[in-house]
Order: sequence, then structure tokens, then C-alpha cells
Amino acid sequence: MRDFTPSVKAQRERVLARIREIYRAHGFDEIETPVMEESSRLSAGLGGDNEKLAFGVLRRGLTADDIAAASSTADLIDMGLRYDLTVPLARFFATNRAELPPVFRAIQIAPVWRAERPQKGRFRQFVQCDIDIIGEEGIIAEVEVITATLAALDALGVTDTTIRLNDRRILTDLLTALGLSDTESALITLDKLDKIGANGVLDELRERGAGADALSTLDALLSSHANPTAAPTVDAMTNALPAGVAPDAVNELAAIAKAVGHAGRLVFDPFLVRGMGYYTGAIFEVAHAELGYSLGGGGRYDGMIGRFAGTDAPAVGFSLGFERLVDLVTVPDAIDDDSVAVLYDPTLDVSALGAVKRDLLAEGLRVRLVVKTKNTRAILDQLDRDGFRRYAFLNPGEPLEWKTLD
Amino acid sequence: MRDFTPSVKAQRERVLARIREIYRAHGFDEIETPVMEESSRLSAGLGGDNEKLAFGVLRRGLTADDIAAASSTADLIDMGLRYDLTVPLARFFATNRAELPPVFRAIQIAPVWRAERPQKGRFRQFVQCDIDIIGEEGIIAEVEVITATLAALDALGVTDTTIRLNDRRILTDLLTALGLSDTESALITLDKLDKIGANGVLDELRERGAGADALSTLDALLSSHANPTAAPTVDAMTNALPAGVAPDAVNELAAIAKAVGHAGRLVFDPFLVRGMGYYTGAIFEVAHAELGYSLGGGGRYDGMIGRFAGTDAPAVGFSLGFERLVDLVTVPDAIDDDSVAVLYDPTLDVSALGAVKRDLLAEGLRVRLVVKTKNTRAILDQLDRDGFRRYAFLNPGEPLEWKTLD
Repeated sequence: MRDFTPSVKAQRERVLARIREIYRAHGFDEIETPVMEESSRLSAGLGGDNEKLAFGVLRRGLTADDIAAASSTADLIDMGLRYDLTVPLARFFATNRAELPPVFRAIQIAPVWRAERPQKGRFRQFVQCDIDIIGEEGIIAEVEVITATLAALDALGVTDTTIRLNDRRILTDLLTALGLSDTESALITLDKLDKIGANGVLDELRERGAGADALSTLDALLSSHANPTAAPTVDAMTNALPAGVAPDAVNELAAIAKAVGHAGRLVFDPFLVRGMGYYTGAIFEVAHAELGYSLGGGGRYDGMIGRFAGTDAPAVGFSLGFERLVDLVTVPDAIDDDSVAVLYDPTLDVSALGAVKRDLLAEGLRVRLVVKTKNTRAILDQLDRDGFRRYAFLNPGEPLEWKTLD
Repeated sequence: MRDFTPSVKAQRERVLARIREIYRAHGFDEIETPVMEESSRLSAGLGGDNEKLAFGVLRRGLTADDIAAASSTADLIDMGLRYDLTVPLARFFATNRAELPPVFRAIQIAPVWRAERPQKGRFRQFVQCDIDIIGEEGIIAEVEVITATLAALDALGVTDTTIRLNDRRILTDLLTALGLSDTESALITLDKLDKIGANGVLDELRERGAGADALSTLDALLSSHANPTAAPTVDAMTNALPAGVAPDAVNELAAIAKAVGHAGRLVFDPFLVRGMGYYTGAIFEVAHAELGYSLGGGGRYDGMIGRFAGTDAPAVGFSLGFERLVDLVTVPDAIDDDSVAVLYDPTLDVSALGAVKRDLLAEGLRVRLVVKTKNTRAILDQLDRDGFRRYAFLNPGEPLEWKTLD
């Protein structure tokens, strides 16, 4: 977990403001949920491996007897910090549905927490930027979240990216066509493709009893897939798949891609899995041309909301990992021509000093007061680092003479 | 803990943006710290009664043996959620001081958590707006935080407020002058004045052995203080106090008030205590003319930073309680003339629909797509509630005809 000093905080807020602005223009509305959710919700099986990474919050008022009676940590906690924004969204929708429009487009830009082992580039508190559409069963939902995500990436100048598309129904059908009847466990193996490579996947499936024919077909598919570039058109997708695999899903994916447009930015990736178990239809992931990891992902998860809300509602979401994104983005430093520094002598009357600041504020300026020291160079360097462009020495009775930092 | 639906979230963000803007203009810079701090820091004695209200975060990887060996909850936790923004600021300053200017003006606008019993108007997650100046020993620090706080209140239209001023040195001297040698415990009693009234305070001090002379002098002072209105001038303060009480602090307080200006908005309150033990000089509190509680407070706490940072640094802070404030503020609804809704038939081709949205976005509009239903009235009512002003029915091949919601 990290502190953010003023310049870093300002840069983060500038990037977040751009993302918010795009998502808002695309018709999404921002909501906020508490950082804690009930433990029972966080461990309801919807968070995948992340459930194990949830920080637990100790019950209040536990006595020594309570502790002695506890048989596991589950007896000691009643809440936890959210590990994603999807579980809280489902709970939010269940709680607030009466106030929301029938098709609800949510923005959530907020921190989540995971008790990962500290390592480079992994943080225990990090920000996710999620958009979700709840209540729309048609593919316009997929089109809207993908379009908004591409617009956000473009607004940040992160254009060296593609969106990889697939559909859970294609995956299931493909694995069935290959004779891999335990599609759940085969999906888990396929999801490791980036880590263990094509041979690793084939070995693991062989150990699980996959037949020689299936493995040979899969081998051929995996070879041609090494770097997914197929356009998500019906023809290209049909060519990349064994005959007869999930024609409805293929048609839908092609219609989504056509409606999104952005030729060349969308590619079909028949081996994209996305880890979470709750996806039911189209799935997507942001791939960066040079980075070895995705910048975000999402998909359709029609069954999940119902587990919280009683009645079901279709849902599609797309999440951007802010910490990975912010490192790629150069939003110009907020050098602010309205920021001025006034260097004053510490013996100066405080009322006079206060009045000078008040007058400058009234002119719409941002004002920092700085005590003069012998080391003016150090003061000016600091002001420069902090984004100030103008300064003046305060000499009582004389007008301020602005000088420019350079 | 509460969810914030889009309209509430938007209102909160508008109010926060105004506060941020004022604080920034006054030369403060925003920082951010993780929501969790080490338990040892949260229970180091600097959080007063709030330390008991900290949510504890369970250690990761606790085994059944670990639990069996635990003798108290302290053995089960290693971190906790922050209960205020002052303890994290002191830790932040210790960690990051090398990067910060010698006089560091911090904004922290962030949630804190306290495990209070749920009751009306008390929340377990709530936002505080703090400004602090670290590294300035002169009273210009008090002048700057009070001036910025008044500017923020004024920008929000919360002008029916006064800032009550006192100084810990005045309190200590006053209690000593009254012969109440155990000033620490007398301060705790005085701090209850709002709750137990003047007679309650006198009774409690009598039980603790205060003499008849002291009680009679105090009685007279408390009577004249019932509603503090004394201007913080040297004369008025001297008149309100027994002879010879803390003349230096009185002079400083008068100089602070003079430099802040805002005649009538600042009053001297010789019985203002502020609960926290770490205050060392001037203390302040925002009183609202009609509400029975303060909207915020602060003061000088010169000894505290050193307990974290090794070397000491003077510090002054002022905190506004956002949840109390936001209820008083009416920032106009963000009815946005650039927001439009497009009502479409669900049989419409998705590509055509996507293209319409793209064109409107390119015009700089905020666009919500809405499926037509038989109940147009319900759709329009929802759009009105959600801040939309214009809508059009999408008829393929025809231009959009905007209608106004009213």
C-alpha cells in the first residue's frame, strides 16, 4: 500500500477525471459503496481466487472467551474489504434497485484490497475503473461498454491496444467438440495458456485424459492462435474454429464487433477465458502491444445479479486496472499559470501578510506563502517541482513584482 | 455504512469539488494515504477515544493454533482502518518528508471508519475534509487554516456559522488560577460542558475536591459564557478571564483573529476544550447558529509529529466533518443541457444504434440510450429524475427531433 504525494496524487486525479468524463458522456452514472461488505457476500463463490485474498475485519467486542471458542478465522470476522467492484455492485443493485432506471449504467471508480504477497507492480490497495450495464439483455450492452472503454483508452492516448473478444459459449462448445467433456476443468487449464504455454496446456489436458485426436486438433488451433489477429467477423471466426461451434455466439460476437467499429482494434481470441466463473456470454480483455499483461477485461454475467437480488437481471461489465494504466499515461503536468508564490520575511506583521494573500485570492490566483531564507535557490527549485510558475518577494509598502520560474 | 446512488453521489462530489478548489487556491496540496495503518500506530495514544473505535484487520494466514494461542484481539490483528486523518498524516509526513516543502500544506479529503453503535446521523464510514500545515511555528499557520476554512464555508453558502477560538495555554492557566491543580482531569470535565451543563461541571469538579472560591469564580465565568460572543480582542479576552491568565496566548489569539478578519465570525470561547490530547496552542471549532453540534474543528499540535517523525515539526490543522456539512448545502442539481436521451425500438439494428450514439458523442453530448416501452411516461419521469432535459425518438432514416422534458 502506498502514499501519494501531491504531484502523484494530482496526476492520478487528472487521469481519473478523464476516464470519468468519458464514461459519463457515454451515459454511465457514478455510484459509491462502502469499502466493507459482509463476509458471507465476499465468500459466496463469486469472487473466484480473490475470495481467499480478502482482508477480514475483526468482529467488534470479541472477548477472550469468544476467541477461545473460535474454531477458524471465519468465527472472528463479520465483514471484509472488497476485493473487486462486481460483488459490491450486485449487492448495491439488490439494495437500491427501486431507485434505479430499468437499464442501469454504473460507473465505479474506487479502491479494492487484496492480501497479495508484496511484489513489484502488485499493490494491496489499488484502484479499479468499472462500468457495468444491468438490465439489458441485448448486445447493445456489450457494444456500449466496449465503445466506452475504447474511448477512455483513446482519451488517455493508450491507443497501442487491442480488445480481444471471445464468448464463453464458444469456449464450451469448442471444448465439447474436442471431446473434453469436463469443460470446467479444461477452462481452468486453458486460462493458464499465457503462463504455461501451448505445450503446458496440452500436457495438462493429456494428464486429464484428453484423446490424441482432440490434442492434435487443439495443437493446430493453438499454433495458429499464437498471436490472435483474426478479425471478429463471422467468416474469420468460423475459419478459426472447428465446424459448427456455437454459431449463435459467433454471430453475436460479429454483430458486437461491427457495431463497435474501430476496425483493427478488435480481434477474436478463441482461447481467451477470463478467470471468473460467473461469465455467461461475450468476454473481452484489453491487450497492450508491448506489455505482457492485460489492462482490463470484462464480459457478460447474466446469472450473478440474481444470486443477490432475488430476481435475476442480465449484466455486462468492463473493468480497467487503473494502476497499470496510469503508468502508461502522460497527462501534462498541471503547471498552472494562476499559481503564485509570495516570499515573505518572517518578521513581517501577520495581518499584513494575511491581507496580501487575501487580495491575491480575490484575483482568482492560487497562493502559496513561503518564508524567505538565505537559500533562495532551494525555495525556487521546490516551487518549480511543485508546479509554480511565478513568484514575488513581499516588500511592505511596495507592489509585488512577479518573476518567472524557469 | 451507506450506498450512494447516482444523484446523491453527484451532489457529494459537487460539494467536495468546491471544498477542494478553495483549499487548493489557498495553497494547500492534496495527498492520499492507504485506508489501513499499522495497529501499533492507531493505538499509540494519539487518537483519544477514537482508538477504541478502530476496525481491526485480521492477520493473514492465522491457523487454528494461532487463534488458540491468542490471549486478546490485539494478537489477531496487525492493521486497522484509520479513524481519523491526523494519525495517517503524521505517519505520511514521517515517511515522505524528504520530498515535501519545508512548510507543507496538506489537503486530505477521504473516508474514515469508526465502529460506533449505529444511530441517527452517525455513520461508520464517513468523509472528513482536513487541511494541515506542518513546519510553520508562527501564527500565520493558524491564520491560513482558519481563513481557508471560512472561505470553504462561504463558498458552500454555510455562512450562518462562527469560529470559536481558544488556546490550550489559556485553559491550563485558567484552571491553575482557579486552584484546579489536576488540569488534565479538569479539562475532561470542562469538555462535557455541552452535555452536562454548567451545574454538571461544577458538581463534578466539587467531587474532585475543587475549593469553594474556585467554584464560585468558575460559576460566574460559566454564566457569562452561556453563549460565547466575546470578540477575540485582547481587551475582551482579558475581561473574560481572571487577571493574569496566559497573556502571551491571549495576545497571539488576538493577532490571529485580527489577521483573519471576518469581524463577527470569530468569537472567544474560554471553555472550548476540543477533546484530543495532542493540542498544544490555539484551538478552534465551527459552531452553527442553529445546530447543536460543531461542523468541524482543529488547532495547533506541535508535539505530535515528532512521535512519528523522530525530529519534531510544528503543526496546525482544521478538519470539516463532511457528512454534517453536505446536509446543509444546496448545490444546484446538475441539470445538464448537454445530456440527451435517445429512445429506440429494441428491434433496431445494433450497428445503426451504435452509430447514432457515436455521432451524438462526437457533438460533445452526454448520451443515454433507452429502450422504448408502452409506458413512455415512466421513461420520461425517470429521465427527469436523472437530470436529463432533452430526448428524441429514434426513427431510422429520419433526423432526431429533440423534445424538452418539463
